[in-house]
Amino acid sequence: MPIRVTVWGENVHEQKHQLVRDIYPDGMHACIAAALNRDPGIKARTATLQEPEHGLTEQVLDETDVLTWWGHAAHGQVEDAIAARVHDRVLKGMGLIVLHSGHHSKVFKRVMGHNADLRWREAGEKERIWVASPGHPIAAGIDGYFELPHEEMYGEPFGVPEPMETVFISWFQGGEVFRSGLTYRRGAGKVFYFRPGHETYPTYHNATVQQVLRNAVKWANPDQRYGWGCPHVKAETALEPLVEHGGSVH
Amino acid sequence: MPIRVTVWGENVHEQKHQLVRDIYPDGMHACIAAALNRDPGIKARTATLQEPEHGLTEQVLDETDVLTWWGHAAHGQVEDAIAARVHDRVLKGMGLIVLHSGHHSKVFKRVMGHNADLRWREAGEKERIWVASPGHPIAAGIDGYFELPHEEMYGEPFGVPEPMETVFISWFQGGEVFRSGLTYRRGAGKVFYFRPGHETYPTYHNATVQQVLRNAVKWANPDQRYGWGCPHVKAETALEPLVEHGGSVH
Amino acid sequence: MPIRVTVWGENVHEQKHQLVRDIYPDGMHACIAAALNRDPGIKARTATLQEPEHGLTEQVLDETDVLTWWGHAAHGQVEDAIAARVHDRVLKGMGLIVLHSGHHSKVFKRVMGHNADLRWREAGEKERIWVASPGHPIAAGIDGYFELPHEEMYGEPFGVPEPMETVFISWFQGGEVFRSGLTYRRGAGKVFYFRPGHETYPTYHNATVQQVLRNAVKWANPDQRYGWGCPHVKAETALEPLVEHGGSVH
Amino acid sequence: MPIRVTVWGENVHEQKHQLVRDIYPDGMHACIAAALNRDPGIKARTATLQEPEHGLTEQVLDETDVLTWWGHAAHGQVEDAIAARVHDRVLKGMGLIVLHSGHHSKVFKRVMGHNADLRWREAGEKERIWVASPGHPIAAGIDGYFELPHEEMYGEPFGVPEPMETVFISWFQGGEVFRSGLTYRRGAGKVFYFRPGHETYPTYHNATVQQVLRNAVKWANPDQRYGWGCPHVKAETALEPLVEHGGSVH
Repeated sequence: MPIRVTVWGENVHEQKHQLVRDIYPDGMHACIAAALNRDPGIKARTATLQEPEHGLTEQVLDETDVLTWWGHAAHGQVEDAIAARVHDRVLKGMGLIVLHSGHHSKVFKRVMGHNADLRWREAGEKERIWVASPGHPIAAGIDGYFELPHEEMYGEPFGVPEPMETVFISWFQGGEVFRSGLTYRRGAGKVFYFRPGHETYPTYHNATVQQVLRNAVKWANPDQRYGWGCPHVKAETALEPLVEHGGSVH
Repeated sequence: MPIRVTVWGENVHEQKHQLVRDIYPDGMHACIAAALNRDPGIKARTATLQEPEHGLTEQVLDETDVLTWWGHAAHGQVEDAIAARVHDRVLKGMGLIVLHSGHHSKVFKRVMGHNADLRWREAGEKERIWVASPGHPIAAGIDGYFELPHEEMYGEPFGVPEPMETVFISWFQGGEVFRSGLTYRRGAGKVFYFRPGHETYPTYHNATVQQVLRNAVKWANPDQRYGWGCPHVKAETALEPLVEHGGSVH
Repeated sequence: MPIRVTVWGENVHEQKHQLVRDIYPDGMHACIAAALNRDPGIKARTATLQEPEHGLTEQVLDETDVLTWWGHAAHGQVEDAIAARVHDRVLKGMGLIVLHSGHHSKVFKRVMGHNADLRWREAGEKERIWVASPGHPIAAGIDGYFELPHEEMYGEPFGVPEPMETVFISWFQGGEVFRSGLTYRRGAGKVFYFRPGHETYPTYHNATVQQVLRNAVKWANPDQRYGWGCPHVKAETALEPLVEHGGSVH
Repeated sequence: MPIRVTVWGENVHEQKHQLVRDIYPDGMHACIAAALNRDPGIKARTATLQEPEHGLTEQVLDETDVLTWWGHAAHGQVEDAIAARVHDRVLKGMGLIVLHSGHHSKVFKRVMGHNADLRWREAGEKERIWVASPGHPIAAGIDGYFELPHEEMYGEPFGVPEPMETVFISWFQGGEVFRSGLTYRRGAGKVFYFRPGHETYPTYHNATVQQVLRNAVKWANPDQRYGWGCPHVKAETALEPLVEHGGSVH
């Protein structure tokens, strides 16, 4: 069975700015979904901010193995309840891939427990992305590094917890560095942050970027789901015999 | 200068239940603060849920190096804005020590980015707490393990991210285990979760528990503060010369 | 193509002690290999200390995706060169699963950079193994915990680096705890330590233990290989133009 | 009591090459020790390869809280027994700071359990070192980044385990990046790797580099020592009552 991916797109810049529409005529989300669907082991569909429940109903998430998230201009318009729903799904096993300016989304900040701050510059400079974890499946097919001729700069410090694995680190022409590919396990779910993808450059048309996205989907595909909860174990059903001691306020 | 600690107490059980008041006549927070103040290098005061802004005004936090947090019955009554304020302070360097049922507090769940779920049983059973990181400053003075004759059981799985360091692991008489002392770095702040401390047992009167609390305060005392933010670096002030390329939607 | 596993067995106790031979008539390694081969996606063979190069020739390792390691009585008889060879293979991508008393093998201590010390007791007591990372593929099929009626006790502190993931934690009848399932990434290779398996108990006949071994093999199966090395990049072939400055002692 | 530091220097380039002697007339180790001794809370002495036991006798290590290590040309001349001794001391609590080409020392590779491979270029190019963990004590006093006008390049991938904390990341003029400041806890000991320090540039005369070295010594100063070992707990002295079951081959 193919991995079921929901590609979430904020879909604001594409509606407002001809500059972005020229690069992504059907929206960035459509470009990303098409790149994923090039792999027969992946079946990607899209969801956008403007749909009811931002397209992320319980039913859609029931049918989602991995969710990708791109947002920028309208983080504040994402309902708290939907961000909480996505967060809960991640802890229960759904994979999450957060893209570029999605770092400041409600979803990513919640899952990280962090502000996700960083320094930035929009000058269309060169970015060279180095593999720091050779052999990692997300970096499969990349020989040492790859380059993007024009990207927005994101610079350290990046306000996230120390990752499980540092997959990519970027060199920027203007003099900064950034941890561009980071993995986390959160509950039963796997999370990958991938830096490139500014709306005014054709980054999601880049073949290596598309390969990384497909690699990341396969990596984040859940092994198992887990429901969590706080089970109350009664003294009389303890695994070892117990004599209760002391009172309770319950 | 002594380390300035604010001991936050929910202060609900102590008001409602004679059972708890018998153990902690002045409240659990008063007992914890007194234990900390036994060290001349620490200056602890208290704050409670019932005070304006839960006793955690900006001014109080300006004067707080380390915050300890105990809550249980009234997590939902903590204002979101205060939980967000504490979270922000932690990222900027304030130490945070979360105690026992504080695992389900808004503050801890926000900082962890996790549900902090666990299994539990209130039977007054024996808990034996093993040192898993010998040499760690939080475990200073403990020779291998220490015991609490009567405690609530918390059992794995514990819904938190993999820690920076696993300091303590508990053995419970009824058959469960639990990671009872976990450290995290979050931004410039250090976070310690310490499991024991159920309201109906005299845990915070235990000399070893008090020693761990003092150790943890010293460990969590901030090295430096850091303000975070998202500085915009203009192309013309880049550290390396840049020629701007491409458009912008800003 | 099935995952190619080499099951390494020290094969000393089985030769010397009827007690062990009664449980494992063909050796512990044969029992483990048979358990793995029950999965059609795995093809396991064995290698033992007594074979030339301990059965771990370059050719054998060329054809090995995952190596499992059980040793106890004869760690010192493993040649340093073979331990170094295995270590090198792990960094290049070969999965490594270290079993029980293999914690003190040359291979495991080298890969960990640690002494792997622990406390122990051989009393045939009950061990209950809790899942600490629900949803982890190595724990697939286990509902919360499983029990072994008779095992050797290993107790904390365990002299290893903080793991990537804490998959299992054991409760022992005699009062100790132990991190019984730990994952590490080392270079391109994945490493899993799994505690149970004392030679005088039928642990490797246990269905859940066998399931964990199969799960672990699938988890440790390399994503990619990576050759490492220290490439010298000449100034004139630098990715960005450089003017050399200063001298050299080379 | 001041922190007792032993600054270990290979002391080969300084003896052979006028180029190096011009920069470090008394040896690199003397320059580093002097930089440390500028802080009254630190008392540093030196030890070199050429001394008996490389200057690292048991007595010297008994009196060492933190050891710094610089080597390059003669890693192979360090006796295995001395490397093992240093490793053992680290696990027992001694701080270890490994400098620049010390990455390929026996000591560092043993402690890491890794090959410490990297790419390199000796062209005297610009290195800009960014703080990735703001608020970390090792980065105290650095505002965002600092620069070295001429350094050797080290590039990713760096063959080390994922660190406890990523303190620094370097940008190189020639187009590479490198994780230049990494922390590890190994047993009771703290380990810091710090990249800069090529022998043909005056890096250890740089005021910020010297500040980092002093910061790192204070960070690595042991909290407690721990002796390790494998204590055998007899069944009759178990913490919980046990009835022995099964046989033993011992």
